[in-house]
Amino acid sequence: MDFKEKALKYNEGGKIEIKSKVDLKSQEDLSLAYTPGVAEPSREIDVDKDKVYDYTNKSNTVAVVSDGSAVLGLGDIGPEASMPVMEGKALLFKHFAGIDAYPLCLNQKNPEDIIKTVQAIEPTYGGINLEDIKAPKCFKIEEELKKTLDIPVFHDDQHGTAVIVLGAVYNALELTDRDIKDIKIVINGAGASGIAITKILLDAGAENIIQCDSQGIIYKNRQKNMNKYKKEIAEKTNPENKQGDLKKAMENADLFIGLSIPNVVTKKMVRNMAKNPIVFPMANPEPEIYPEKALEAGAKIVGTGRSDYPNQINNALGFPGIFRGALDIRAKEINEEMKIAAAKALAKLAKQPIPKKLKKLYPNEDLNGFNENYIIPKPLDPRVVPKVAEAVAQTGIKTNIARKKPKPGQIEQKTKKLTQKTNLI
Amino acid sequence: MDFKEKALKYNEGGKIEIKSKVDLKSQEDLSLAYTPGVAEPSREIDVDKDKVYDYTNKSNTVAVVSDGSAVLGLGDIGPEASMPVMEGKALLFKHFAGIDAYPLCLNQKNPEDIIKTVQAIEPTYGGINLEDIKAPKCFKIEEELKKTLDIPVFHDDQHGTAVIVLGAVYNALELTDRDIKDIKIVINGAGASGIAITKILLDAGAENIIQCDSQGIIYKNRQKNMNKYKKEIAEKTNPENKQGDLKKAMENADLFIGLSIPNVVTKKMVRNMAKNPIVFPMANPEPEIYPEKALEAGAKIVGTGRSDYPNQINNALGFPGIFRGALDIRAKEINEEMKIAAAKALAKLAKQPIPKKLKKLYPNEDLNGFNENYIIPKPLDPRVVPKVAEAVAQTGIKTNIARKKPKPGQIEQKTKKLTQKTNLI
Repeated sequence: MDFKEKALKYNEGGKIEIKSKVDLKSQEDLSLAYTPGVAEPSREIDVDKDKVYDYTNKSNTVAVVSDGSAVLGLGDIGPEASMPVMEGKALLFKHFAGIDAYPLCLNQKNPEDIIKTVQAIEPTYGGINLEDIKAPKCFKIEEELKKTLDIPVFHDDQHGTAVIVLGAVYNALELTDRDIKDIKIVINGAGASGIAITKILLDAGAENIIQCDSQGIIYKNRQKNMNKYKKEIAEKTNPENKQGDLKKAMENADLFIGLSIPNVVTKKMVRNMAKNPIVFPMANPEPEIYPEKALEAGAKIVGTGRSDYPNQINNALGFPGIFRGALDIRAKEINEEMKIAAAKALAKLAKQPIPKKLKKLYPNEDLNGFNENYIIPKPLDPRVVPKVAEAVAQTGIKTNIARKKPKPGQIEQKTKKLTQKTNLI
Repeated sequence: MDFKEKALKYNEGGKIEIKSKVDLKSQEDLSLAYTPGVAEPSREIDVDKDKVYDYTNKSNTVAVVSDGSAVLGLGDIGPEASMPVMEGKALLFKHFAGIDAYPLCLNQKNPEDIIKTVQAIEPTYGGINLEDIKAPKCFKIEEELKKTLDIPVFHDDQHGTAVIVLGAVYNALELTDRDIKDIKIVINGAGASGIAITKILLDAGAENIIQCDSQGIIYKNRQKNMNKYKKEIAEKTNPENKQGDLKKAMENADLFIGLSIPNVVTKKMVRNMAKNPIVFPMANPEPEIYPEKALEAGAKIVGTGRSDYPNQINNALGFPGIFRGALDIRAKEINEEMKIAAAKALAKLAKQPIPKKLKKLYPNEDLNGFNENYIIPKPLDPRVVPKVAEAVAQTGIKTNIARKKPKPGQIEQKTKKLTQKTNLI
């Protein structure tokens, strides 16, 4: 069987199902699960709405919402064709973090319509994961939903990616003895993830970022191919208001982050960066420049989206733990502080010794602990979700967005148990 | 622990969760479940939309949609407080028919808004079960959704109840040697279920129905407390255009069906019905008249919604099998013919010998086969779902609303297996 056949077979009939959490073996069970018994929790919630978190699965539920307009590698394929992807995401939510995620693929294109639908379904879910929605409408949708909903709304393509990149950046800077305030950063791509990465880097203290899109450097008063969000970027980045192409942008840059298209970065462009540059060509599956070429051209640290190279910057490192932490404190939102805390937790974990068991899962890699080839934890590391969840939850409590406040350590403990239960590795 | 405490404990943390249907044990599994493998089924669906039934769980999925505006016995408690009920319903879907049902409680009141939301989520689900939505808006919502969606839309409070009542009516008529064409029927209550029952009885051949609401008999040109749907009822029923109260309506009636409020029927009113009357006082939990009183007043056959009396007319007899049959043929709708076929399947099953195992489940009942105290199968009878599903599926194929056409017997076989897998009894 070739890979295509295997993939089709694997996905046949769908990947997730519903399971009962209660016994249903007798007439009495039936009377507790449905009428008349079910009226009791309903009455409790009717008096105190927050009790919906106690008496239903809302407290452990995330809707994976998409219109299928920007599916990784496939583009605007619509809601039906995006269903296997959203089911896959739901599967990862359960597998990595014990979260019950439901795909919700919408037959709508207009941002106003999508906003209204997600507002309508809010009572059912503990959180909303927006997925594979095209830029720039994804920004508007998330912005409005964050403003109006009382549960976390998180566009993973933006913030999931941004959190993990930031984690990798922290460690790459440490290894090359740089400070985020002083470095020159170039980000190629101004879609969902590109813009989110710029924002999180600014929040983390970066002061010199140049962002490029297909038209080259984004600068103040540029006329071509702009939108509200790029205008905002132009205001906050590019302090010298440079103009020109990606090649020009990359001159003397310390850090390159690519979220664009294959092979737009040449060895020469890497050679023209600052000494010991950090290069994250993350276009998937084909990067902006292949790692071996970047290294030949003098890159000190290279990270990509691929599983067959070191330093895989993979979203699975983020969303499970971030939502786990948010759900465990019944968070009203996932704020900027929580995201930065997640990035720091990832960076910190990469500096800890690697368990033997984990090394066995990556037989083709030379995992020797913190160094140029290991700046970010591996996606299958069972320590990732508890560490990230704990950091996110504690930060949520500190920043006053928690409905529930577990004691320090409680969440990590709970998450560890969940991780074991879901047979992570 | 009293019943309330038991019920709260039982519902704590919710009643359903997500489970994986696939292995996720290696890096390769991960690549099949998510990127890059998941792109293969997505591409297939992009080319042929109907393949979403092959490569996702859509084919086995129902959304249980409610705005919480008419929750049984609790009224308009809103979406959050209705969540335990919808989770309970989802649990029954899985338990009785192996169907993966997701609660979807909406923060909307306006029928137009609810319609738009359900239209938006269509790609994700194989069917829509509307639940506990107030009349008359439930009629408008269902009508419009049936017109615009390409998957079954079924308001269980209306049609689930109607199907089971019709099944019971068929057998009650047979036992009392009556023909549906000739009898005089009184229905008290003109909400969701009352109106649906009138419609299905008309479709099944009834010619003389009088429907009452809180204002008494519904007649042509009545001015008080009318709506579009009651006007339609006035046109199609009450051939002599009688006016007056429930008492008057019930004079000489052969069959009374109550979907109203407790204790509105007196012994005298039953005595004034035709000889050997059939009385279904279905208000829940307190019926319009208690069975013992109705029997004392001369009723020949009595059915209620209660589990502690014979002839329980319970929705669990309907929706699991009806949706099972509809999903198995990937139906575009659940039409009138399918509903009547379900009612006939229930009536037929009640005339078959009762398995010993089933008798043990009902130790307090005298189950001796088809007679006045057993006109409809018991809710826990494992034969119900396969029989109903088979009848519904075959009728769907005959009436050309099937996307998929399994051979006769295939569905019953498949459903039986499911029934065993879900450990029905």
